[in-house]
Amino acid sequence: MLFHVQMTVRLPHDMPPAKADELKAREKAMSQELQRAGRWRHLWRIAGRYANVSVFDVSGPAELHELLSQLPLFPYMDIEVQALCRHASSVHEDDR
Amino acid sequence: MLFHVQMTVRLPHDMPPAKADELKAREKAMSQELQRAGRWRHLWRIAGRYANVSVFDVSGPAELHELLSQLPLFPYMDIEVQALCRHASSVHEDDR
Amino acid sequence: MLFHVQMTVRLPHDMPPAKADELKAREKAMSQELQRAGRWRHLWRIAGRYANVSVFDVSGPAELHELLSQLPLFPYMDIEVQALCRHASSVHEDDR
Amino acid sequence: MLFHVQMTVRLPHDMPPAKADELKAREKAMSQELQRAGRWRHLWRIAGRYANVSVFDVSGPAELHELLSQLPLFPYMDIEVQALCRHASSVHEDDR
Amino acid sequence: MLFHVQMTVRLPHDMPPAKADELKAREKAMSQELQRAGRWRHLWRIAGRYANVSVFDVSGPAELHELLSQLPLFPYMDIEVQALCRHASSVHEDDR
Amino acid sequence: MLFHVQMTVRLPHDMPPAKADELKAREKAMSQELQRAGRWRHLWRIAGRYANVSVFDVSGPAELHELLSQLPLFPYMDIEVQALCRHASSVHEDDR
Amino acid sequence: MLFHVQMTVRLPHDMPPAKADELKAREKAMSQELQRAGRWRHLWRIAGRYANVSVFDVSGPAELHELLSQLPLFPYMDIEVQALCRHASSVHEDDR
Amino acid sequence: MLFHVQMTVRLPHDMPPAKADELKAREKAMSQELQRAGRWRHLWRIAGRYANVSVFDVSGPAELHELLSQLPLFPYMDIEVQALCRHASSVHEDDR
Amino acid sequence: MLFHVQMTVRLPHDMPPAKADELKAREKAMSQELQRAGRWRHLWRIAGRYANVSVFDVSGPAELHELLSQLPLFPYMDIEVQALCRHASSVHEDDR
Amino acid sequence: MLFHVQMTVRLPHDMPPAKADELKAREKAMSQELQRAGRWRHLWRIAGRYANVSVFDVSGPAELHELLSQLPLFPYMDIEVQALCRHASSVHEDDR
Repeated sequence: MLFHVQMTVRLPHDMPPAKADELKAREKAMSQELQRAGRWRHLWRIAGRYANVSVFDVSGPAELHELLSQLPLFPYMDIEVQALCRHASSVHEDDR
Repeated sequence: MLFHVQMTVRLPHDMPPAKADELKAREKAMSQELQRAGRWRHLWRIAGRYANVSVFDVSGPAELHELLSQLPLFPYMDIEVQALCRHASSVHEDDR
Repeated sequence: MLFHVQMTVRLPHDMPPAKADELKAREKAMSQELQRAGRWRHLWRIAGRYANVSVFDVSGPAELHELLSQLPLFPYMDIEVQALCRHASSVHEDDR
Repeated sequence: MLFHVQMTVRLPHDMPPAKADELKAREKAMSQELQRAGRWRHLWRIAGRYANVSVFDVSGPAELHELLSQLPLFPYMDIEVQALCRHASSVHEDDR
Repeated sequence: MLFHVQMTVRLPHDMPPAKADELKAREKAMSQELQRAGRWRHLWRIAGRYANVSVFDVSGPAELHELLSQLPLFPYMDIEVQALCRHASSVHEDDR
Repeated sequence: MLFHVQMTVRLPHDMPPAKADELKAREKAMSQELQRAGRWRHLWRIAGRYANVSVFDVSGPAELHELLSQLPLFPYMDIEVQALCRHASSVHEDDR
Repeated sequence: MLFHVQMTVRLPHDMPPAKADELKAREKAMSQELQRAGRWRHLWRIAGRYANVSVFDVSGPAELHELLSQLPLFPYMDIEVQALCRHASSVHEDDR
Repeated sequence: MLFHVQMTVRLPHDMPPAKADELKAREKAMSQELQRAGRWRHLWRIAGRYANVSVFDVSGPAELHELLSQLPLFPYMDIEVQALCRHASSVHEDDR
Repeated sequence: MLFHVQMTVRLPHDMPPAKADELKAREKAMSQELQRAGRWRHLWRIAGRYANVSVFDVSGPAELHELLSQLPLFPYMDIEVQALCRHASSVHEDDR
Repeated sequence: MLFHVQMTVRLPHDMPPAKADELKAREKAMSQELQRAGRWRHLWRIAGRYANVSVFDVSGPAELHELLSQLPLFPYMDIEVQALCRHASSVHEDDR
């Protein structure tokens, strides 16, 4: 099932650049692994902001929380979650 | 290019049901036409609310406004727009 | 799986009392049916407000939306949804 | 009587991990003690956030404040309280 | 126990003056009855607004809701409730 | 005349405990002195939060500001002020 | 003593123009009477909005409420009140 | 022409007292110089808060910005600006 | 001098279409007249909303208010005004 | 195509002045380069605030994000983006 997630990153200004780089590299690797596994179905940058809009395809809230809370940038993100479902006007039979 | 659009519908409580049904039928037809044409790339229902999350693929803000302002429910919707672009961590070369 | 739902009812002041009573009676009947079926697990009044806090136990966002959107008072409610999961500090093995 | 409590934890980013771990361990122990005593009736994680939704069963606002203010994470939490009561549509005679 | 209640009245502009007067007269009578009974301990006007700040002394959220929801102006008020308790710096032994 | 004041305390997390204790002790002493003098007429804790609701009885805004700005915790508090007056439905002749 | 008052007028769109004109004429007359009496010390239009910023010089919250609640447009205004006092950096001995 | 300016001061808690005192002294001196020159026409303290309401009389937005941005406390203030003009109901011919 | 104005139009849903059309036609005519006169320097549509972003070049707040309050849609618009000035990093000598 | 961008700068109070000066100098240089290239079409200071209103003319959200995220002050700015298009009432054929 699908969850719409908007993440805004707020890194502390006094974080050493090396630590920030390492966090971002691990975040990117984990994100791409989840994308390839089909769990992180969409990932878009919001133009002009250090933020993204994502759609996750998971087995439920428990898996969603497990994935999000393990992201390296999780302690530094404001996260808003909305549960999605197929729209009655969609031209697709499934939730694409 | 992509725009993230969240629409919340607020029909006046005194709208005659027949008018509401007619507006919704025309909205659905136009929505499906735009989906088939590839302009309205994603359409999801937000669970528990008379609202949707959509992603449009258009040539720019002018086309986006033209499409949205012609929707039959446009006068009754609160609409929030965010411009999207490819995320540097996306596993896709394009903006999927 | 569990969803936390807060509903605030805003009936139009010019709704005829008979219609309001009929809506509320049907809302109560459907609510109790869903409670008995185990779908509407908790239902509490928020003291001092025409509003409730509820916990639904459903198969996913699609079923949640189906249940909520069929409530007789749905067109007159502001609804906020939060997906819940078991807390790591819970003394229960399940999501009670 | 019941109080609905939503807690959002905001640990300072410069808190030493050992101190954070110790605070969390003590928070968990006290939470489980209160759950077993029937004071902290429900405890759920909000998916995707370092936050929980809880229902407390206490003798009144004074006991609620005493319990919450003694939690090890209290200084680092945003807490919202809503007083609950039995809903007239509940299928239970009590406030379950 | 004490609850702090802020009520803001929003009468529809098209309510007939006679109905408004009748509602206000009944509201005043019920308010004074509750004040004399010691349930509505304090009642102050907020200067410049059709609103009041009140302190109720009741047996719990259930009684608070029963009292507030029976007020004639209840359908026309925005109500905010905060549970109060004795402050550790109070010079009184009780919750005055 | 009366002013309704809501104070929320936000101590910096890195304040040395000894300094915090000293500030709180001086705050308590000054608060009790003002209560005994009849200037700080009511003082209640808001359950679950490091915050209070107070009613001051002073000669005007100037005295109110003088009292509040001299509180030891003043630099660490968010303060909201509302001017109160006797409510026309009060059963008291004065502003109790 | 001084109170800073910001008033925003929201006339119902279906108010007959004659009634609106009559209300505005009475509002203007009462406003000018209060200005001449020194109670309504300042009155400025906020550019681009049907709103004003005012400073009242009254004997206290009770008189302020009496003046504001008698204004013909009172039922149609959002009003925000802030108590003012002399600023320590003012070059005037009084509260000008 | 007139601009209504509300300034809220938020000094960092770790600013050395000597620096804070020096900033405040320079702020006061510049404020009084501008008051005497007629540019800073009104200056009032908001009771209970480290904030003021001011009215500036300047030649336009450029001069307003020049004055405000040179204030010693400018980097520590939240500033809200509203352009004012003579109100049609004012008893004065000018913008007093 | 320049003022940044954002206007959001909220026509009542029960306004007769003929009246709405007439208001819009007059609004357009007046807008174009002001654009040609150089007073309404910029006018852009915000994509997806019945709203615009405008920049006015006027002699001060008084003229700005006079222009805006005479617009036929003024009673139906939420208007936010910000005073602008030349930016120190602008490549232009004037405020273009 | 055009995007309306409002940037509010929030430099940490403990940033060394030399670093702040260097960031601002590089920001100014990059801003002027983009203005001369026609990408940063308008740049205005908001009077009284460390903030600006800008209009960018870019090929789409991707270029907009690339430009904004490379600004030296980007990590210290709150940025709000609105997509613009030609207004039907504009006297210009293009989006000026």
